[in-house]
This record gives sequence, structure tokens and C-alpha cells, in this order.
Amino acid sequence: MSEAFLYKAWYVAAWPSEVTRTPLRRVFLEQPVMLYRREDGRPVALADSCPHRFVPLSRGSLVGDEIVCCYHGLRFNPDGACTLNPHGDGTIPAVAKVRAYPLAESQGLIWIWMGAAADADPRTIPVLSIPHFPALDDADAYAAVGGRLSIAANYELITDNLLDLSHVQFLHPGLRVANPRVTRHEMKQEGNAITSYFWRDEGQVNGLLKLMGWPADRPVDSRAHMHWQPPALMTLDVGVTDVGRPVAEGMSAPSLHLLTPESRERTHYFFAFLRTVGKDDAALTEKVRVLGLQAFEQEDKPVIEAQQMNLGEAEIMSLGPALLAPDAAGVRARRVLRGLIEAQRVEAGSV
Amino acid sequence: MSEAFLYKAWYVAAWPSEVTRTPLRRVFLEQPVMLYRREDGRPVALADSCPHRFVPLSRGSLVGDEIVCCYHGLRFNPDGACTLNPHGDGTIPAVAKVRAYPLAESQGLIWIWMGAAADADPRTIPVLSIPHFPALDDADAYAAVGGRLSIAANYELITDNLLDLSHVQFLHPGLRVANPRVTRHEMKQEGNAITSYFWRDEGQVNGLLKLMGWPADRPVDSRAHMHWQPPALMTLDVGVTDVGRPVAEGMSAPSLHLLTPESRERTHYFFAFLRTVGKDDAALTEKVRVLGLQAFEQEDKPVIEAQQMNLGEAEIMSLGPALLAPDAAGVRARRVLRGLIEAQRVEAGSV
Amino acid sequence: MSEAFLYKAWYVAAWPSEVTRTPLRRVFLEQPVMLYRREDGRPVALADSCPHRFVPLSRGSLVGDEIVCCYHGLRFNPDGACTLNPHGDGTIPAVAKVRAYPLAESQGLIWIWMGAAADADPRTIPVLSIPHFPALDDADAYAAVGGRLSIAANYELITDNLLDLSHVQFLHPGLRVANPRVTRHEMKQEGNAITSYFWRDEGQVNGLLKLMGWPADRPVDSRAHMHWQPPALMTLDVGVTDVGRPVAEGMSAPSLHLLTPESRERTHYFFAFLRTVGKDDAALTEKVRVLGLQAFEQEDKPVIEAQQMNLGEAEIMSLGPALLAPDAAGVRARRVLRGLIEAQRVEAGSV
Repeated sequence: MSEAFLYKAWYVAAWPSEVTRTPLRRVFLEQPVMLYRREDGRPVALADSCPHRFVPLSRGSLVGDEIVCCYHGLRFNPDGACTLNPHGDGTIPAVAKVRAYPLAESQGLIWIWMGAAADADPRTIPVLSIPHFPALDDADAYAAVGGRLSIAANYELITDNLLDLSHVQFLHPGLRVANPRVTRHEMKQEGNAITSYFWRDEGQVNGLLKLMGWPADRPVDSRAHMHWQPPALMTLDVGVTDVGRPVAEGMSAPSLHLLTPESRERTHYFFAFLRTVGKDDAALTEKVRVLGLQAFEQEDKPVIEAQQMNLGEAEIMSLGPALLAPDAAGVRARRVLRGLIEAQRVEAGSV
Repeated sequence: MSEAFLYKAWYVAAWPSEVTRTPLRRVFLEQPVMLYRREDGRPVALADSCPHRFVPLSRGSLVGDEIVCCYHGLRFNPDGACTLNPHGDGTIPAVAKVRAYPLAESQGLIWIWMGAAADADPRTIPVLSIPHFPALDDADAYAAVGGRLSIAANYELITDNLLDLSHVQFLHPGLRVANPRVTRHEMKQEGNAITSYFWRDEGQVNGLLKLMGWPADRPVDSRAHMHWQPPALMTLDVGVTDVGRPVAEGMSAPSLHLLTPESRERTHYFFAFLRTVGKDDAALTEKVRVLGLQAFEQEDKPVIEAQQMNLGEAEIMSLGPALLAPDAAGVRARRVLRGLIEAQRVEAGSV
Repeated sequence: MSEAFLYKAWYVAAWPSEVTRTPLRRVFLEQPVMLYRREDGRPVALADSCPHRFVPLSRGSLVGDEIVCCYHGLRFNPDGACTLNPHGDGTIPAVAKVRAYPLAESQGLIWIWMGAAADADPRTIPVLSIPHFPALDDADAYAAVGGRLSIAANYELITDNLLDLSHVQFLHPGLRVANPRVTRHEMKQEGNAITSYFWRDEGQVNGLLKLMGWPADRPVDSRAHMHWQPPALMTLDVGVTDVGRPVAEGMSAPSLHLLTPESRERTHYFFAFLRTVGKDDAALTEKVRVLGLQAFEQEDKPVIEAQQMNLGEAEIMSLGPALLAPDAAGVRARRVLRGLIEAQRVEAGSV
């Protein structure tokens, strides 16, 4: 176990469409994992390393619900038990098993539990609730444009990026507003969850909501509320209303920002733009997709990777960074996460 | 000296056609070596590093039997002695010499001795004897299709691959038989040599022998006997006979599998398919070449490299692998090699 | 501070034309630096790392003389002081400053001081004086063809290369003479400066001077005098005269060879060919450029990089190299530099 990661946690493993009858290799918390679906569609996650010669099982092929290693034909079921040794007298060695990772499909995502399987409880899967928006499990109620980026940076640097949306104004010309004026910025912690609130009253609409149909010249009260839960799950409630009107009357453009560490220096970034407005408008969906990829892939990714390159192996806080007002949420999230990882260390030590 | 390697040993350095009047750089056991031929054709191996500025000598040019360094013109003879210093008063510094490695041409291969030159005895070059097949030095008696691959994996992982041919059935569709049934599997150690025997009685012919003309529907007794000598020299006696008939009446398709470590994580794999059947049939030679490269380059290489990637720096046995019946020969070979390397360590310590 | 480098020294940072209103990232002595020009043209060098999130400032944009970080809009002046925090109440944290490196433009080059800024004195910028040639600050008096290579090798290996020009005869067919005969070779140290003198009397003209118009068949006395100052600044006085005539009557083709370490294993090599002969002849300038790049980029660079690859992390002197007569200057330069670095270490320790 590395102290870089929280293990007792549900992480996003994949979008449901990524997990198919063709095995998929993906690395989480430095552990190679193979993902595939049973014939009845239920997803499976096994360590991607055959216990015989340590070849990736994802190079093998499925027979029913079982994976056959490409190298010597050992066969494993979705629990990771070896069900066939085609050699000698067919005895299955006691150590011929692979770790099975608990998985669950929820809220339009496939989740994986990276701690001890006995501790996995699907009821503890984080709820990605967004104010004034349908529940994510109600897929018909909204449109989603999702994607995944692999970013060559530590996941906490991406958390910092997302909890401090003041960067939008500088880094994302397509998303920013012409004349920003943050009326109020607040940070709240509830239990281990943190929300970073930005409000801009009587201002201009941003690029995303303009795309979704809000007239550029119609003055708005805007909000951008990023909600964080450990280890690195964020939902963003972005929206506008006519000046002085309640949120329910306005327009919302929420998004998901869900990070799963691949290693200390590389991160899966699952993102999605959600909307109820024009939810069946395929052309709009495509426009939102292009806008989002421009921001995340062309603007955030190279800057965060350059940041990681400048940092090298140094932990950012150890360098005594200048801290600004909008860093409050990121600093707090870092502290919550360090506390959870420290608790994990103490617990492991006491076993 | 690294304990990853056996130094007092003859290794395959090159196919004879690879060593020419153009110097060739090649790394063996982490040592850069330059290979070339004298004007009379005899091969030479020198450390590929000029003792003056440590530039690779292989960047230089030959003058007669001597190599001239490209950088400042120091000249070295095939013994590694400096014969010309074109600078100052021409005095040759005492340290201006390069290590010369003993070489020998034998059995259609160029062999190099990686231990102390004083210990090199060409009479100890391993004999690659194949039952029921002409001696390899008798080049006119057989056809050979050879090649070399550079594989990004430790050589012992490739030894494991070759000593457990049960993988053919899973990894090599072009070589396998339609309906395998191993009648008997045995492993024998004689001195430091190990042979892994597979017999399949009353079965079908494999892909290679079919290519060589054996009718697909004519039932056979098959054998595949892999013979290993340290450090990593293997010959494979593959063949079929009509059911119940002696080997001499059947058809043989032997092959060579000779490994020379480049480093702990990279290996030269010299392979060759041999045959007496249709030995002057160029079209058949080409078909065998294509079949072999498909198996070694497209099927074995990526799997073994993925295995090495999963292992990282871990030694495979330290991970407690599940061992199956056909692993017996590989485990034994590993033990023999470890014993020889331990003896080398003790001997070095006692000097 | 690394003992691989001398910090209290002026290094070449760039050719003046490379530093513009577009920020340029360049690494010196393992430190990332951003270079740009003020509106009035004066160059600026700041650490290329924002003290807030450590993103390279060179990704930002200039507003007047100030750089705006691309990520959160912190603004820094040419002294490295933060002048604007666009967040919260705008308070500028005490640690929000970046290191400013002293710069100076002199002799057609931009120089940077890598030690403590308080120690920087532009009067100590090394003078690149070339015998029988105009002062380099008198730009109208001569033509220059310059360039920069990034070489994957330690800078001292390139110093060795330059102080031992005997390699020209072996490595550079375009520059060498047909029939070399070094009449005299000498090495002189004056203070910390070293000059390596080569004379060839009554010989043939070299490739460069031939290009500049000296008839191939007109016998010459030649000289090639490489002058070194620490840490790695070299000027080469190359020229010919009719036999027995004074230098002032002959033709000169001097050049600059100025090295700035990027890291222990990578070096900026700033070079330039200078001439008064045909100084307005653009076709000649192009021919000289092609000849120079052939020598430095196609011939020196791959050999020095192969040397570094063979050396790995070993320091060359620790391997007991064979030393030849023309190594004297390089060995002496290495000793001078080690002495200066040792003095720096002692001084740092006594603080």
C-alpha cells in the first residue's frame, strides 16, 4: 500500500460503454486491472496478471463468463478462481487465483473498490447529486457528453485545478465570460465533503450556457459550485438565472469531474457535461463535446502536465507555494484526504 | 560482474553473415562489443569503447585488420593492442588497449566468450546436437532459415517459454495441432543439461510439418523434445512418424533457440528452422520463414514483453507463481543456472 | 547547488534574436528560466515557475513589461515581484515572487548570471577577444554565422572536443587539410585561461579558408589557437598566411564555441563563424553555415552523444582514460574548473 492513495474507496473505473466482451486493461492505483462483461452484461474486474507466468490476462479471450490466459490456457471465473488447468493431471494449484475487484454500475458509471473486497459495500458508492438536476440514475431525464483523458500528472493537481475555477477566466477563452466580477466566493466543509462556491451577480453569461441557448446580451446572475468528495470526485453545478430570479427558473449546465489515479504521476480523468436543455439535440451535443475537449484536452491538460514536469517528484505543499483566496477549497480537500490516508495507515499498522 | 549472468560461458554473438567488414555494435551481458572480420575472414570482437575518449570504436573504419577510431585516429589490432597514436611523439600509453573477446565460428554460428580470455577454450563450445539430424557443421546436409530478434525481456523468461512448449497450443495457431492429446511428458537432467519431452501418439500433424509436406489427414505419432544447456542454449527436436514407426522413418523439423542476454531486461534471440526435407526448395524456405516469424515475432515477443512489463524489476520466482506440470523443466533449468552463477560468485570471492 | 556546475559565472543564455516578446523557456544548470524582452528591448530572465502553482510562466503572456501566468493570472514584473493578484481582496502573498536572473547583452550575445544576483557584475562578463580580429561589440566590422545545438552530453566532454582540435583531421572531412603536419603544439595557462596552440608550417589550406577564397594550391603557414575561459567559453583563432609572413597579412576565420550546461547530461552549444573577408557576401555566409552545421551537427554531435552513452553516469577521468599529447589543454581546463567548483563548495560551507 502506498501512502499516495486512499484504498478504502470507490473509484470510477470506466464509462459503461467502455466495458465490453473484449477485455480492457486499465491501471488503477498502480494495479493493472482487466475489465470485461459477463454474458448477462454484468461487469467483471480481475487483476490483469495471470498467477502462473504474470502475463496480462487481458491478452486472453473470453469463453462464456471466463477468461482464458493467452499463454498456457489457464481459465479463471469472474471471482478470480481458476476453473481449468489444461496441463498434466489438471490439478489446480492453490495459488492459482487472481484478485477480483468489486464493481458496481451506478449513476451512469462503473465503479471499482480498490480496498479489501470484504469492505466493499455498494451502498457506500458516492452519490453524485447535483442541485436542481435530475438524479444521474434517471438516464432518460438528461443528456450527457462524456469522455476520458489520461493526464500525466498527480490527481491532486487536477483536484486543485477543479476546486479553483478562477482559472477558467485565464485558461479557457471558450468558457469564460467577457467581464468577470466575482460577487462572492465561499468554501464549505460538511463532513468530508467540500464545496467551493463562486457567484457572479448581474454579469454576463459564460461560453457554455451561451452555446445552450442563453442570449449573450441577457444579463444574468451566475453560479459555479464545485462539490468535492474524497478521494477525488467532483460535480459542478454551473448555471445562470435572470437577475434576481431563483435557480429553478434559470438554465443549468452541470458537469462531472471524476479522477482515478493510475499512478502517482498519471490520472484517469472522467468528465461529462450534463444538460436537460435540448437534451435530444444531437448537434448541440456535438458542440458541447467540442467545447469541452478544447478546454480539458487542449488547455487544462498541457498546463497541468507542465506543472507536474516543473514539480518533478516534489509534493507541491513542500515547496511553500503562494496561496491565494480561491485555493482555500483545494487546500482543505488535500487536508481531508491526507487525514483519511493517515487513518488508513494507522489502521493497517494496528492489524 | 553481475549475478544476473554467467560469464564463463560461450554465447552466440551473431550469425556469420552479420559480421562483415563494416563494424557491428552489439551489447552482450551489459558490455558493448564491436564485431568485424579480418581481411582473411576471421571474426574479431573488441570492447566497443576507445580507451582514449570512450567513443564507440564501431563508428570508426577498418584499415586492413585494424580499426581506426573515428574521433582521434587511434588504431587497434584484433588483439586490442594500440598500434598507432598519430599525436605528439606517437608514444602509445600503456592503458591504450581494448579488451578483445575470444570468438569462434562453429555449427553455423559465431560464438563469443564473455569470461576471462585465458579461460576460453573453443573445445568447450556447446555442441548443438539434434537426434536423427546431420551435425550442424555439415552445412550442405540441411537447409536453415535463421533470424534474430531483440526481445525486451529477461532471457530466463524466454527460456521458460521454450522449455514449456505447452504454450504452442494456446499462443501459436499456425503451429499447433487441431486436436492435441499429450500422451506423455517427461523431464530429464543429465549433468547440467535438461530435456523436456512431449509425446503425442496417434494424433494430428502440426502446422510446420504440414507445411513441409506431411498430409494433414495422415495420423502420426509426434514428438517435441526441447534440449537445454546453460546458460540459455536450446535445440528442439520436433518430428512425426506414421503411427508406431521408428523416428528414422518419419519427418523432422528441428529448430535452434539460442539466447544471449543483452542486459537484465533485453535479450538477443537467435533462432533457426532446420530441415533436410526439400532442402533446396526456396519457396518452402520462404514459407517456413514466414511461419516462424509469425510465431516468434508476432505471438511470443509481445506476450513475453508484456510479462516483463507486469513483472517490472521483480524476479518471477519471488512472486510465488502457480507452477504447473510443464513448468518442471524451466524450474530445473533456473536452478542449474543459479547454481552455476553462485559457483562463479564463490570463485570470484576466493581469488 | 550541484558540484557539477560553477554558479558564480556568466553563461551565454541566447543569441539576441532568440529573445523576443514571446516568452522562451530554456534550462540552465538544471534551472528552468524564461527569457523575454521589455517593450524597450531590454531582456529579462525569470525562473520559469509561478510561485503559486509552479506552472511555467513562459506559457503566459506579456502585458507591457510584465508576464501574466496563464493559469490564474498572477502578474510579475521584470524584477520577479508580483504586481497583481486578481483574486480575493488582491493581497499579494509575501512568497509570491520569482527569482530574477541578472542578464546583460554584450559582444553579440545575451549573458546570464547563475549565482546570487548580488554577486553579478556586468564588468566581469568574459571578453571574447580574438587576436587580429575586430572587437565583437563592433558588429559592423565583421560577419557572423551563428547557431545553437542542444547536445545530449556533459559540457566538459564538449570542452574536451574543442580543446583538442587534432580530431578535426579524423572527424571532419570538410574542414581538414589534405596532408596535415603539425609543426608545433603548445598549451599555455594564464590565470584561469588556457590556450591550446596548433601550428602547421608550409602546409595546405583547410576547408573553411578555402571556402573563403584562399587558393587550394597556395602553400600556407596555418594556426589554430583555441582559447578557453571557465566555465566553458572558447574562441578559436584559425588562420593562414603565405609561408613565413606575419598573421596580419593573412586570412582569418575565427569562431566562437560557447557552452552552457542544461543539465549534467545536456548542453547548449552556441557557435558562430566570424569573418571580415567578404563580410557582405550572403552566398558565402550560407556556404559557411552549411559547412559549420555539417561539422558540428552531423559529425561532432553524434560522436559526443555516443561517447556520453558509453560513459553513462561515470565521470571520464574516473575510468583512467589513455591520455595523448593533445589532451593536455583539456586536462588542464578540467583541473581549473574543478578548483573553482571546489572553492565554491568551501565558500558555501563557510557561510
